[in-house]
Amino acid sequence: MSAVKEIRAIGVHDYDNWLDPKEFTYEPQEMRPEDVEIKVEACGICGSDIHAAKGDWGRDYTPLAVGHEIVGVVTAAGKDARHKVGDRAMVTTYQGTYPSGKITQGGYASHVRVNSEFAFKIPENMDSVDVAPLLCGGITAFRPMMTAGVTKGTKVGINGIGGIGHMAILFAKALGAEVTAISRNDKKKELAEKLGADHYIATDEEDFSKKHEDSLDLIINTGSSFSEGNVSGVLNLLNPYGQMIYITAPPIDEKLTLVPFQMLMNSISVGASAIGSPKDIDYMLEVASKNNIKPMIETIDINEANVKTAWERMLTGDVRFRFVLTGYDKYFK
Amino acid sequence: MSAVKEIRAIGVHDYDNWLDPKEFTYEPQEMRPEDVEIKVEACGICGSDIHAAKGDWGRDYTPLAVGHEIVGVVTAAGKDARHKVGDRAMVTTYQGTYPSGKITQGGYASHVRVNSEFAFKIPENMDSVDVAPLLCGGITAFRPMMTAGVTKGTKVGINGIGGIGHMAILFAKALGAEVTAISRNDKKKELAEKLGADHYIATDEEDFSKKHEDSLDLIINTGSSFSEGNVSGVLNLLNPYGQMIYITAPPIDEKLTLVPFQMLMNSISVGASAIGSPKDIDYMLEVASKNNIKPMIETIDINEANVKTAWERMLTGDVRFRFVLTGYDKYFK
Repeated sequence: MSAVKEIRAIGVHDYDNWLDPKEFTYEPQEMRPEDVEIKVEACGICGSDIHAAKGDWGRDYTPLAVGHEIVGVVTAAGKDARHKVGDRAMVTTYQGTYPSGKITQGGYASHVRVNSEFAFKIPENMDSVDVAPLLCGGITAFRPMMTAGVTKGTKVGINGIGGIGHMAILFAKALGAEVTAISRNDKKKELAEKLGADHYIATDEEDFSKKHEDSLDLIINTGSSFSEGNVSGVLNLLNPYGQMIYITAPPIDEKLTLVPFQMLMNSISVGASAIGSPKDIDYMLEVASKNNIKPMIETIDINEANVKTAWERMLTGDVRFRFVLTGYDKYFK
Repeated sequence: MSAVKEIRAIGVHDYDNWLDPKEFTYEPQEMRPEDVEIKVEACGICGSDIHAAKGDWGRDYTPLAVGHEIVGVVTAAGKDARHKVGDRAMVTTYQGTYPSGKITQGGYASHVRVNSEFAFKIPENMDSVDVAPLLCGGITAFRPMMTAGVTKGTKVGINGIGGIGHMAILFAKALGAEVTAISRNDKKKELAEKLGADHYIATDEEDFSKKHEDSLDLIINTGSSFSEGNVSGVLNLLNPYGQMIYITAPPIDEKLTLVPFQMLMNSISVGASAIGSPKDIDYMLEVASKNNIKPMIETIDINEANVKTAWERMLTGDVRFRFVLTGYDKYFK
């Protein structure tokens, strides 16, 4: 196989009319020695795709193909690339500019071309559609567990059982932690148990904070807002020297208000963690492969109408838990 | 030597007139098998002594002798005590109640009687007056360095160069860290250099945050308020995965406002750390002994007038950096 001359993609043509994605083609950046070209097989739809498509984080250029949870097969490789043609790899990119000035495009496309340092070899025993959501949501949930040294018996709370939260439960269990799922009410209890959570706390129970105080070493907070919810009550669940880590991107101007006296009484800390390094991702894939970790996904064939439908359903939270685009061969034939 | 029947002390008799400390005597708790009695030689005056004397943290009983940075010689030891008569030890206590219902008193007194688990053998090469401030201020500064794994080359910032801050510089240097002293202006620069700081940042410099961004792994914040000062600007000094730890007791209702987006962009955390365990204190004493750590102190003979004077001078910040009461033999003869 040799490098393609033109890449076909589906993306936003007008930020003010972002829910009308259309096909376009673009000429890819020239292959550099360290680059690989990947023919896409699957791409997860991340919440950040929607922020980017709406122009929430800047309106640099259109058309814009989003998608960074990309899995595919290497179809061309530069002489210094760390993968070879035929390897299955996953990658993250888009909304950037090459040194040449050429813009980048994402994985709602026939191919992507990237520096092989940021492409990861996928373990044989994992399906492409299951791997896609790990590249962003998975590593985001996994990284704070590495930082905190989660191991057998560590008491880990996962606050918010959604797209990232459910992956966090799977990884915490894989590392041997005793896992407590934390949610607003009892609705996610059955799901949490199915995912392997050992305990469940509903924060709408009036006495949840007192009843479960000093019971967790680490809380991973997957909620989409930092100011919503009973932060102080949830912090009270931490053991001495415990930490709560937020992993989702809040609006730029959002504030988090803490009570230092409460923090000092138990020597606790509150932090944030974003994504992970290439080395972290390799390690995550190893853990996922060994423990047969499969996120809960809904596959959907890539085409203009389906991208629109998937985005619309995500806006109303109508997906458990991650859409993964497939059918690339059919559409980009 | 045998246990005394009565202990003489100087303390508060009326919280509304706390700046008039007077002598009183009290009958000590009976010696339990695990207890030691210590004849006091020196006692540091901690900022918290004043909070307690004023009744800021409760008005449980009077008369109240404060003082928890106590060093002395063991004059009586129960059969299960971990020290023997003649040992030099240091200890923390007061404003508590024994299981028997008997109240506890502090180290502005001829003797204290305590569970030997909370009394620490002092290395031979250290003077009692130098050791006293380590038991509270020293361990408070040292503990977050243990938590963060400070070692040779770790980049540690100490924000606030006062009683605790100057000890933090000494300990960070002893652990091999590259130390940056951080203060509001240039006034403490010479002192910081004398204490061994490698770098100095004045936060009244307009561009300090940008100029020194991503330069520190750990910031220990010794300021007395969480809401004062440019928190966001100081947080910007942290490297990725860096942490800022507060170690001083704020008013109960004080709030700390953070910008989660800033924290997420650099995966940083903000925490608090209070005191340390008996094991931590033993380790701190070992490090202090090996590195000949001596806090900057001003000794003052214990008597009613001097306690009043010392408290008054502390209210105006007129001490570099810690008063240590001495002359116990003279007064309690």
